[in-house]
Amino acid sequence: MSSLAVLHASQLITLAGPPRARFGKELGDLGIIPDGGLVVADGKITHVGKTPEIEKLCQHDTEVVNARGCVVLPGFVDAHTHLVFAGSRLEDFESRARGETYEQVAKRGGGIQTTVQATRAATEDDLFALAKKRASWFLQNGTTTIEAKSGYGLTLKDELKILRVIRRVGAETPLETVPTFLGAHAFPPEFRENHVEYISLIIDKMLPAIGHEKLAEYCDIFCEQNYFDVENSRRILTAAKQYGLKLRMHVDQLTNGGGAQLAAELEAITADHLEQTAADGITALAKTGVQPVLLPGSVYALGSKKYPDARRMIDTGLAVVLATDFNPGSSPSPSMPMMLSLAVTQMRMSPAEAITAATVNAAASLDRLDIIGSLEQGKLANFAIYDCHDYREVAYWFGVSLIRDVFVQGQKNPLNARS
Amino acid sequence: MSSLAVLHASQLITLAGPPRARFGKELGDLGIIPDGGLVVADGKITHVGKTPEIEKLCQHDTEVVNARGCVVLPGFVDAHTHLVFAGSRLEDFESRARGETYEQVAKRGGGIQTTVQATRAATEDDLFALAKKRASWFLQNGTTTIEAKSGYGLTLKDELKILRVIRRVGAETPLETVPTFLGAHAFPPEFRENHVEYISLIIDKMLPAIGHEKLAEYCDIFCEQNYFDVENSRRILTAAKQYGLKLRMHVDQLTNGGGAQLAAELEAITADHLEQTAADGITALAKTGVQPVLLPGSVYALGSKKYPDARRMIDTGLAVVLATDFNPGSSPSPSMPMMLSLAVTQMRMSPAEAITAATVNAAASLDRLDIIGSLEQGKLANFAIYDCHDYREVAYWFGVSLIRDVFVQGQKNPLNARS
Repeated sequence: MSSLAVLHASQLITLAGPPRARFGKELGDLGIIPDGGLVVADGKITHVGKTPEIEKLCQHDTEVVNARGCVVLPGFVDAHTHLVFAGSRLEDFESRARGETYEQVAKRGGGIQTTVQATRAATEDDLFALAKKRASWFLQNGTTTIEAKSGYGLTLKDELKILRVIRRVGAETPLETVPTFLGAHAFPPEFRENHVEYISLIIDKMLPAIGHEKLAEYCDIFCEQNYFDVENSRRILTAAKQYGLKLRMHVDQLTNGGGAQLAAELEAITADHLEQTAADGITALAKTGVQPVLLPGSVYALGSKKYPDARRMIDTGLAVVLATDFNPGSSPSPSMPMMLSLAVTQMRMSPAEAITAATVNAAASLDRLDIIGSLEQGKLANFAIYDCHDYREVAYWFGVSLIRDVFVQGQKNPLNARS
Repeated sequence: MSSLAVLHASQLITLAGPPRARFGKELGDLGIIPDGGLVVADGKITHVGKTPEIEKLCQHDTEVVNARGCVVLPGFVDAHTHLVFAGSRLEDFESRARGETYEQVAKRGGGIQTTVQATRAATEDDLFALAKKRASWFLQNGTTTIEAKSGYGLTLKDELKILRVIRRVGAETPLETVPTFLGAHAFPPEFRENHVEYISLIIDKMLPAIGHEKLAEYCDIFCEQNYFDVENSRRILTAAKQYGLKLRMHVDQLTNGGGAQLAAELEAITADHLEQTAADGITALAKTGVQPVLLPGSVYALGSKKYPDARRMIDTGLAVVLATDFNPGSSPSPSMPMMLSLAVTQMRMSPAEAITAATVNAAASLDRLDIIGSLEQGKLANFAIYDCHDYREVAYWFGVSLIRDVFVQGQKNPLNARS
């Protein structure tokens, strides 16, 4: 691949530096370069700077991209998705509008079990075709890396099938995927009366197989009363660590049940959701440096009014992460710009805080800060060009895409090129 | 223009018939034709039906569009927008995240006055260039007709300038515009201490000039304590009627101040916002058949939790309308699919009710039911093809566009073709 240069961005938002919590109003916070540019060679960023400096580095065969009047941001890193599933949850969507709660939907046999049934019935190729289309949605909206969880199979065979699809999306599409095992997403119907046995299945069969095949980097769990309680979560996650899996956890989504404290105790990398977490839970996360992953899309789509307390987390010094929670039941959105809008309008995060949470902080939470999350020399040339002058517009206009072009490892709109 | 046929839509959603309120679960409510198609000649729909019938009508030179696996909807009709303005409200956006209220922003000199100042300073050509870009956003999101209000000029000259820009967008882009005069949007700074004189300016100078030039079809007002109260609203709107203007009204957005009752008294065509309207106001609207125009985008973007009581309005038999309220201060979104999402998730409207509110009911509120709002013989061939199997998906997936193609008077993606 020959070299490529981007020139004349109104604002090149580098996000250079470590993950971070609080922000003032200074330009420096986001590492903004006015009239900025960068050079790419072999898929990586070789230089970042002001346009005049970058222009001097261009050679006769350098492909030049003019970003005049535009903002350039690093590719979004979406650190919490449920990418792979089959079936439809439109009935649940409609019934919630008629007043059914999430729990009521689940009780009448809707909810996650619908998705589990359809996902079990689907072949690996079926699931890959669905996931590939969704990968294009993520890319079109400026996301270049996603974490993706299993958790709609809930048998050894079906969990492995989903994890293989996640790997295949990473290998066969331009979207990078980071796989997480979430066998403890719910109790499957055949174990409804026998939770102990399903937990044994996870610990004795699923974890060893996944460890053996190296199909996941992380293990996650739905830690919640009536699902996987604190004690069982501790057992499963302690076992997961023995197979080299790092921990992410769904905690305190429905009730404030000590999930944040458990995440701190187990030194999980992230604690996700946190809608019900109170001050003591936030303090516990801060003590151990667990990163909060906030998922405003699911609060919004469930019609709940209770967003996680992002302001307290940021003010406590936590490097907050924003993610879509992309899933069919509670957050059917692949759009990080939509999450930025929700973060600013519903959680009182500043646009700068929201963009940081969606890039550099998210990359840190996936242990990939060396290669993604900011526009710095040596990192992958994953970025998007937005048709606006000010980075805040990416969070401000909602329901409309400002994206002009997306680059993955220096390749422009790679999905269009391949498909 | 030669003829065009659309074939094999999974669901062709006709919305045939009159405006309507309540819905059951039957397919018939939306006039859904499975494996549907339509024929277009000279920009108008000549036939609508099942694909086999439509195929028989195709001639050798008919251009065929295959919509297999897709949903076809009428072009959205956005019955409340503030399309034309200059300047930026990003500072307000950011300061609201820091906790400032809409009223506090206005008091420190931010808010609408920022936009008025910038809009006055802009030339007609400046404003047209901005509006033309926004017109492309509306079209890309499936909207083919918008109502557009003046109201950021607040002098005779500047209000006329804005109305001319609205007319020009309608004439020079594929987006149809319906102009509304909103001189009574706010008191301009030079009349802050002299409201009586500004009201006289509206009645004695602005209304006659607009009536003379036929620059508006509707007159609107911001009816609210400390803005235009009920008594002054009555005076202005009664004068407007004498110039042949029909009435739309901003009512009960901030307080429940009798605005809905005034709309009923004056036989306004629509009462818009209605966030604070209680049961008696809704009853008043129903008695006179005033259509409620609900604007969930501004509730969302202001971070408010109080949405209008859509369920009560629908259950009372009102033909509710959904619109974007596109504007820089409180609803920076041109996306009707986003409004459908808000309607279902935040206001408990069903997807069918939301789509009806965004098409046929909205067309009725703009007195254009003879030419737009549904897919019926004789109407304009304004429609969009969505890459999904079920119409509910248009409201379900959020922050991502499912639109494959938009047709205006039978022309495919006309803005791309022109620009």
